Amino acid sequence: MHKIDLNSYKEIIENYLEQYSLKNFPSNLTDSAHHIMTLDGKRLRPIMVLMSYLSYDENYQKALNAAIAIEVFHNFTLVHDDIMDEAEVRRGQVTVHQKYGVNKAIVTGDAMLPHSYNLLTLGNEDKAADLLAVFSKMAIEVMEGQQYDMNFETTDFVTPEEYMEMIKLKTSVLFGASMEIGGIIGGASEDDRSKLYDFGLYTGLAFQIMDDYLDAFGDPKTFGKKVGGDIVLNKKTFLLTNAMKLATAEQKARIEALFNEQDETTKIEQFKALFTEMGIPQLCIDKMEELHNLALERLRGTTISDEHKERLEYLGDVMLRRVK
Amino acid sequence: MHKIDLNSYKEIIENYLEQYSLKNFPSNLTDSAHHIMTLDGKRLRPIMVLMSYLSYDENYQKALNAAIAIEVFHNFTLVHDDIMDEAEVRRGQVTVHQKYGVNKAIVTGDAMLPHSYNLLTLGNEDKAADLLAVFSKMAIEVMEGQQYDMNFETTDFVTPEEYMEMIKLKTSVLFGASMEIGGIIGGASEDDRSKLYDFGLYTGLAFQIMDDYLDAFGDPKTFGKKVGGDIVLNKKTFLLTNAMKLATAEQKARIEALFNEQDETTKIEQFKALFTEMGIPQLCIDKMEELHNLALERLRGTTISDEHKERLEYLGDVMLRRVK
Repeated sequence: MHKIDLNSYKEIIENYLEQYSLKNFPSNLTDSAHHIMTLDGKRLRPIMVLMSYLSYDENYQKALNAAIAIEVFHNFTLVHDDIMDEAEVRRGQVTVHQKYGVNKAIVTGDAMLPHSYNLLTLGNEDKAADLLAVFSKMAIEVMEGQQYDMNFETTDFVTPEEYMEMIKLKTSVLFGASMEIGGIIGGASEDDRSKLYDFGLYTGLAFQIMDDYLDAFGDPKTFGKKVGGDIVLNKKTFLLTNAMKLATAEQKARIEALFNEQDETTKIEQFKALFTEMGIPQLCIDKMEELHNLALERLRGTTISDEHKERLEYLGDVMLRRVK
Repeated sequence: MHKIDLNSYKEIIENYLEQYSLKNFPSNLTDSAHHIMTLDGKRLRPIMVLMSYLSYDENYQKALNAAIAIEVFHNFTLVHDDIMDEAEVRRGQVTVHQKYGVNKAIVTGDAMLPHSYNLLTLGNEDKAADLLAVFSKMAIEVMEGQQYDMNFETTDFVTPEEYMEMIKLKTSVLFGASMEIGGIIGGASEDDRSKLYDFGLYTGLAFQIMDDYLDAFGDPKTFGKKVGGDIVLNKKTFLLTNAMKLATAEQKARIEALFNEQDETTKIEQFKALFTEMGIPQLCIDKMEELHNLALERLRGTTISDEHKERLEYLGDVMLRRVK
């Protein structure tokens, strides 16, 4: 395993974000956009753009604008998602709409989206057509996924297949596009581009299932969010959709009863016991393994050097907490 | 004056909108997007794209995707504006967020924006760099203008200059960009492009001032909206910002008192009397004339044929109600 220092990439991204991410952004919207852009995040998506690019070429400056375009886009979706979820806190800080009002939060996001388009092709105008095609397709899919997710709130029965389709659209295509965009700028072939996209997509899917798993079975000390948050909200996750599908009549009745359980601690405990009894944790682990293997298979099929394959593999391992 | 049949252009646009405006749009957002896209509108902006293009080339099909990109963008802003204004009705129909909920309306707009980018360059990939530069700059300015406008609600004193800057950003740059985008696709020179943009911009400014004027002094039978709507809301318009600037101490006191007048009919009557006493209607007419002349001066400076200059002049006259 080629252990690499991801912090050095994060530092490059953070420095560039600081200087350029809101250059030429409207002055009356800079405070609110700055608020979301400077929350402490892992910057996984722009790091993906950078590392994908670096697999083809050393001059990483060429990929920085596109990398921050992806981060600006991601942060635009966070601003609007927090409005829709009525979230008060994001990464330990007050959300944009709580601090600046819903209307300003809507407009801030609406300006960040065309701003991300501006950044995407800046300095790589010769590759604009390919970059735009990948970016716009992804952006529209993310919105389709967001609406899909909202529809789940009022749907009684969501299948695991529908759930997988939703997280593919809402979160994973952005990881796929990040990889492909880095590849486009680096000069990757059509075939490599498509495999890089799949590597990002499958890693993103596994990442989301891990997030669902940790919400129930994670260590409260390291998870970062409140354990059991999804359970309390009866949220349709990979765990719940599979449990609903596999449940016997008796188990289904217990699930239905737990949906209305008012004591949060009891609800979390009993849902976890039920999930364990049904083998759901192992199902999560198997699915993550399957997706991780698909991601690696695609990565290995590219023409990039073994050293850079190992670097990208390491990035995936960090995302999926397979390494410390 | 070259009277032309604008309805034939509108028909071309409407037919194309019907078939292609939501092609490849997410199926779970088509109903809400379709709702706003099919409200009866004048389609002025896509007509501008088409007529600007036709000033250079006959094959108008080349400009249709960009024309509907502009209309999709415009409709995205309407969906989000209606959320922010808490508007219940738009063009006699229920607004998107009233019909489908605020969250779906946010996501619908968020998907319409990248969709409009997709349409913008479709079939004109060779001109993508110029099209994108004009479009993104415009899109970000529109958001800046929207925020500017919202800030006015909590600002006691707005100068006419600040007001003009706001309407330039919020509404006029879209008319400018529509003209320029038609020109880009038609092969206009840099110099023509800039003059076409100015023609659209100045016509758009005059159009907005006319709207402000008609809100107070329009004929209730033909205005289309409720006369006095802005007055009731104490909205900072071209009329009010100029009145505030020119008012004597006594007039200022009357304005302040009228802001709190509860009887709507009295409030509208007395504001109109005060505006008339202060010469504000003439000020509007003079300003529209000035802007109209600037627009024509720019148009006349282009290299396009006299016939097409007259056509565009006629479009401006229709917009500004100078012809029936």
